[in-house]
Amino acid sequence: MQTPEFSLNCPVPKNDDAKVLLAHGGGGRLMQQLIGNVFLPALCSPQLAALHDGAVMPFGGARLAFTTDSYVVRPLFFPGGDIGTLAVNGTVNDLAMCGARPLFLSAGFILEEGLPMETLRRIVASMQRAAEVAGVRFVTGDTKVVDRGKGDGIFINTAGIGVIETDLAITPQSVQVGDAILLSGDIGRHGIAIMAEREGLSFESAIESDCAPLNGLVFELLDAGIEIHCLRDCTRGGVASVLVEIAESAIVPVHIIEGALPVREDVQGACEILGLDPLYVANEGRCVAFVAARDAERALAIMQKHPQGAGAVRIGSVAGDSPGLVTMQSRIGASRIVDLLSGEQLPRIC
Amino acid sequence: MQTPEFSLNCPVPKNDDAKVLLAHGGGGRLMQQLIGNVFLPALCSPQLAALHDGAVMPFGGARLAFTTDSYVVRPLFFPGGDIGTLAVNGTVNDLAMCGARPLFLSAGFILEEGLPMETLRRIVASMQRAAEVAGVRFVTGDTKVVDRGKGDGIFINTAGIGVIETDLAITPQSVQVGDAILLSGDIGRHGIAIMAEREGLSFESAIESDCAPLNGLVFELLDAGIEIHCLRDCTRGGVASVLVEIAESAIVPVHIIEGALPVREDVQGACEILGLDPLYVANEGRCVAFVAARDAERALAIMQKHPQGAGAVRIGSVAGDSPGLVTMQSRIGASRIVDLLSGEQLPRIC
Repeated sequence: MQTPEFSLNCPVPKNDDAKVLLAHGGGGRLMQQLIGNVFLPALCSPQLAALHDGAVMPFGGARLAFTTDSYVVRPLFFPGGDIGTLAVNGTVNDLAMCGARPLFLSAGFILEEGLPMETLRRIVASMQRAAEVAGVRFVTGDTKVVDRGKGDGIFINTAGIGVIETDLAITPQSVQVGDAILLSGDIGRHGIAIMAEREGLSFESAIESDCAPLNGLVFELLDAGIEIHCLRDCTRGGVASVLVEIAESAIVPVHIIEGALPVREDVQGACEILGLDPLYVANEGRCVAFVAARDAERALAIMQKHPQGAGAVRIGSVAGDSPGLVTMQSRIGASRIVDLLSGEQLPRIC
Repeated sequence: MQTPEFSLNCPVPKNDDAKVLLAHGGGGRLMQQLIGNVFLPALCSPQLAALHDGAVMPFGGARLAFTTDSYVVRPLFFPGGDIGTLAVNGTVNDLAMCGARPLFLSAGFILEEGLPMETLRRIVASMQRAAEVAGVRFVTGDTKVVDRGKGDGIFINTAGIGVIETDLAITPQSVQVGDAILLSGDIGRHGIAIMAEREGLSFESAIESDCAPLNGLVFELLDAGIEIHCLRDCTRGGVASVLVEIAESAIVPVHIIEGALPVREDVQGACEILGLDPLYVANEGRCVAFVAARDAERALAIMQKHPQGAGAVRIGSVAGDSPGLVTMQSRIGASRIVDLLSGEQLPRIC
């Protein structure tokens, strides 16, 4: 793993708040500022302010989870998936991270004039396959076409609705000192799969994206009565960003062990070649779970039995002297602070 | 109003199904084909197949309406509104057209690198104002940034959730022979406002978009016990396309009177200059209501008392010998068939 200093000292691009930068979409500090300075002050609601993966509201006599994501990944097709599988699994996972059972999806397509119809057909077929695997249904949609040169082939927005059947409040605010932090598998594959495809890199074996739905895994934990406090899928900004966001919003100290983080050897090698830190590389089928310490071993065993959690490990605890900060014990035993990058190491990763 | 023939004989662009055309996003025949040939076969669900403005599902003991739209209008700001007001009112109206009370919105932003932050702030402020007027809340959101030249400033997707409190099934399938067809006001203003701005045309008085939320108007009708069979807002493709879609999906004959269609004189003049037929020009604050004949007069009186329905008129009936077709009695007394255009007369209108 790389020396960590670049993440703290990563220069924030000069921007007198005048223009939108690529880094504003990168899941790091600049994006946090954009949300905090522009979106939240105008559109404020208790649900938006919670800054969770989805909003939770009462509806009828039940609890409803609602989330949205737009997908602008380049290239459209990559080892292990495409923009269509991403558009389903990303939104399914945001619902699962609220503890919700995903039910309904919407699909909004922004197509660029000239997109081959065959490309669209392939993507839509992927969406349907992914929806079947995840057990959700597309119920409403919209299509817009923009002039050639005003889009990039296809952008997809999906919004999702799920029902929360657990009594747990799965949110950063439920995280408690002493919680165990579990990670559902090895990290960095989605980002490296995209990057390799983009840069035409080839490795001995293809590195495939980990893109997958996590609702099945979450439901195994819930059905077993595991006391889950918080869940978050480790997409833009990777595991590091997710942990920082949770530490900051729950105002708790988070401590992780570098040596416990599972990184495949080929992914580690690719990261070294590309100058990336796997801790910040996007995943699309990995999550962290903050669970009550007494349930940690049992939760880990349940995860490891599930196909999406076969490589699950405990990476740390909610512990330490610095509420709001993430610290990491490095391989040589030193402790350092893990912070957000200003933006994403790789733009347009999802 | 123009001679009608062009709408029937409008040449369909040659396209061996190989590429996406601008017209595929235009709300006309080509878009219908795209949905029928590409989206429905793959993503089929009973709700999608209903081809209504929103999907209706049971949730938590209540009936939930769910809808989505992406907004790609150019220019971003126009007389009477901007992409932000459109992104709220368009989705609110789709929920209202299901007879739902709009509750929650999501916002998905796709920003182009280099967008002035001030432009974004203005648009987000418009969204919040429009949400307040319509009585809805933004509860979840997402932001992506694409490279300069791969977008067009800003695209916005909103999805919306509403609750249906009426026992009526407000859908094309509920339309009955004998129903009265009411139109909530004068037509063509949104399209002409956009076109005038785009082309730098100026008129004696500015033509402002009719962009407005219609949920208040719909609730006046529902609260008064009006037997509404179907509602549809007349956006892309205008009043003509909406009527054709309803006639085709309900397999009923629709007959309208050209002389009954309210078109402001300045809008009519602009349409003549621009070679547009107001019957096909987009509106963003107008709907048609199919109501039981015995309730027609009462419904019209209620609409006319509401600010969004002040210019409401009865434009026709579900009547005639040709189920699935829309016929129009022209000003000179002749009858002609009203069909879909192949695409939109004006691309990127919403």
